[in-house]
Amino acid sequence: MVRSEQTICAPATGIGGAIAIIRISGTQSLNICEKIFYPLDKTVKLIDQKGYTVLFGDIRSDDEVIDEVLLTVFRVPHSYSGENSVEISCHASQYIIRRILELLINNGAVTASPGEFTQRAFFNGKMDLSQAEAVADIIASKTSASHKIAINQMRGGFSSEISNLRHELLNFASLIELELDFGEEDIEFADRKELKAIITRVKELTDKLAGSFRLGNVLKNGIPVAIVGKPNSGKSTLLNALLMEERAIVSEIPGTTRDTIEDTIVIDGIEYRFIDTAGLRETSDVIEVMGIKKTHEKITQASVILLIDEISDPAESINKRAQSIREMIKGSDKRLIILINKTDTASANRQSQLAEEIILEEKDILLFISAKVKTGLDELRSGLSEVVVKERLSSDDIIITNIRHYEAMVRVSESLGRVKSGLEDQIPEDLIAIDIRQAIHYLGIITGEITTDEILGNIFRNFCIGK
Amino acid sequence: MVRSEQTICAPATGIGGAIAIIRISGTQSLNICEKIFYPLDKTVKLIDQKGYTVLFGDIRSDDEVIDEVLLTVFRVPHSYSGENSVEISCHASQYIIRRILELLINNGAVTASPGEFTQRAFFNGKMDLSQAEAVADIIASKTSASHKIAINQMRGGFSSEISNLRHELLNFASLIELELDFGEEDIEFADRKELKAIITRVKELTDKLAGSFRLGNVLKNGIPVAIVGKPNSGKSTLLNALLMEERAIVSEIPGTTRDTIEDTIVIDGIEYRFIDTAGLRETSDVIEVMGIKKTHEKITQASVILLIDEISDPAESINKRAQSIREMIKGSDKRLIILINKTDTASANRQSQLAEEIILEEKDILLFISAKVKTGLDELRSGLSEVVVKERLSSDDIIITNIRHYEAMVRVSESLGRVKSGLEDQIPEDLIAIDIRQAIHYLGIITGEITTDEILGNIFRNFCIGK
Repeated sequence: MVRSEQTICAPATGIGGAIAIIRISGTQSLNICEKIFYPLDKTVKLIDQKGYTVLFGDIRSDDEVIDEVLLTVFRVPHSYSGENSVEISCHASQYIIRRILELLINNGAVTASPGEFTQRAFFNGKMDLSQAEAVADIIASKTSASHKIAINQMRGGFSSEISNLRHELLNFASLIELELDFGEEDIEFADRKELKAIITRVKELTDKLAGSFRLGNVLKNGIPVAIVGKPNSGKSTLLNALLMEERAIVSEIPGTTRDTIEDTIVIDGIEYRFIDTAGLRETSDVIEVMGIKKTHEKITQASVILLIDEISDPAESINKRAQSIREMIKGSDKRLIILINKTDTASANRQSQLAEEIILEEKDILLFISAKVKTGLDELRSGLSEVVVKERLSSDDIIITNIRHYEAMVRVSESLGRVKSGLEDQIPEDLIAIDIRQAIHYLGIITGEITTDEILGNIFRNFCIGK
Repeated sequence: MVRSEQTICAPATGIGGAIAIIRISGTQSLNICEKIFYPLDKTVKLIDQKGYTVLFGDIRSDDEVIDEVLLTVFRVPHSYSGENSVEISCHASQYIIRRILELLINNGAVTASPGEFTQRAFFNGKMDLSQAEAVADIIASKTSASHKIAINQMRGGFSSEISNLRHELLNFASLIELELDFGEEDIEFADRKELKAIITRVKELTDKLAGSFRLGNVLKNGIPVAIVGKPNSGKSTLLNALLMEERAIVSEIPGTTRDTIEDTIVIDGIEYRFIDTAGLRETSDVIEVMGIKKTHEKITQASVILLIDEISDPAESINKRAQSIREMIKGSDKRLIILINKTDTASANRQSQLAEEIILEEKDILLFISAKVKTGLDELRSGLSEVVVKERLSSDDIIITNIRHYEAMVRVSESLGRVKSGLEDQIPEDLIAIDIRQAIHYLGIITGEITTDEILGNIFRNFCIGK
């Protein structure tokens, strides 16, 4: 049997909790469930139910009751996968889940592979490929920024833009190819001026989208922050203070504990990941000696560098340290925040004095804090937020977070670049047509109008089972 | 506002997976969801929907789309809690779950405490207390034995039996109290012979139920097995062989990985827990010296003792070791299985010879195995299964697994014992009535016809949130 004709099943919820959902999708969904589901109302036949109907009853294996469940019926095309589907809501016992899956398989279902429900949704025209990819991003989203990008993508904003561009190009490609058919007659169906305008517009847009990838990627995966400074400057105290406050906020909503990624904080919906804090968190102000090489590595990985100095340090040595970091990050768009710690141990005078003596370059930020008594932490949060958000993120822009899309955009841009210079250099139509076709091809790859097994395999392999 | 008048919400599914369910229950469930849910079909009003209806739409916070969800409506009394309820099926992102919970809370819901949905189901007469307790047992069930006991209890088999007993006793108690009202006239409303018969019957049953607790408890929590033997006899090889085969079986159904409890195996639906295997699993045949005291402790905790000897050991020393274990377990119903390991290194003759020379007591089992080449493991499984199942478990019996029920049963039995001897010794009616009332009281405590805040607190505190 062809895979797509088989009926698939898988658990769709996580481990633990009170309820588990088992998903079944495919032409035989209802028939298979009919064999193991005994509705409370014995006059009801599962196979006769309309979509979006919920039934209460037992799952049984012969006479043995496996569980009392709720069963929801979905009918073509109004289901996630675009096929007839059933969702069984049972008690979240691993034993019960396994027994129900066994029963489904014994009655003709097969185990779903990762992402197969979504893959079927794609094949059945319920969503395009970039929307399907967004589903995985939504599930993985931990912050408002990553969530917003993913949900916009799932709702098709990005796809429709790409699709429009593609159709405009397709139109022109056809006209040029028509010219080739009339090769000898030297007729111009495609208005060269209009073509040039549209190529320029599409290229600008693809360049902009490709350019958004770096930001999109950090918004999706978190912004890497390096905490550097000499031993005993209070790095661990600062880190602990930030993480403690974060945890207190998050734990207000019960049942939604933080993931185990410990060294991240979320500010204004954006995640900041502290790099290489091993050893930093355990003890307060441990004497930590970090070599130049290690510091350099951390800075290489970071987008933001927090340099911690003490208020008792001479301005001269602070300036020296800041300058050595500036040299490491020169030419990049990495940002430096200089934190003067332990303000609780010095006078306001000392603070003003230092503020005057410390040399800042244009984009540097200088902040005075006391990690110990927790002053200045809000200003630090604003500072972090400012260096990435205000400057780089304009909220209505479409942002690319997916490396596959980025690579396709770069290819589109390259092809259009060749079309553009080709038009200027009066290059033969057939060569121009090839480059336009190539741009069209790569745009199609993003939305899945053009796919290969390899592309699909790469995308859905990374999904969880049950999605 | 009284707690029970508030509308509660909580995530009901575990961490991870593709889908998460958020449960809302209480009078305001639909009104609260109406404020944040925007159905795809804009003409639909949530508040007008019938129970068991599913709707597709967005959860929004002002203009921001939080997620596309399925929402199921439940109406009094056809919901789990017996209240109007809603289940929101969203993408399993921790961020989305948190945002939806925040929205629900901002619109008037409160966070559910552990087990509160089930507690409300109890208060609303959807289930009695012993059924409510079974819900938690079902979710925790890992084997067919623990699952079967829990599901029978949830479906009320146990409760209805207790309830019947209680009503029979109630009837007699009333008659005896009536006699007391007519005290001077010496009338007997309650037939003494009939009363004696019923008291005897109820006492026999409660004794039997109380007696089932020990077995019920091991079926629920697993049967403790001690592996003992001299260093190098192959304890670790055996343990690894058993666990590896178990794991291979379990992993056949994807998405249902084993819990992290590593040192358990399931045979015929019953879990066996190996006691104190620390150090045993890491290395194959490590030289392990275990003192007499430690061995003794292990044997004290175990129901089954696996004594491992080598086929090259003289029968005399095997008999000596077996005898010393028999002395430790004398008077208990612990069982001894003698395993002669390393059969691959000796002839069949040697095996027959040993089989003759080894002295067995009535219930001992002798098995020849090779943990290394994996022969005899099936016989070992049958042996384990035999010592607990065939002998002790008759499948139609009602089995108590709950210590609260056990304690109540013991009290009932004590009270009825006093009633019985009271009837024989012609003790005054008022004293007999007190003891019958006490038995009735404890039976009522099991099903929740009589409850205290303390009892309820103890029971529901151990539930997960969302159930």
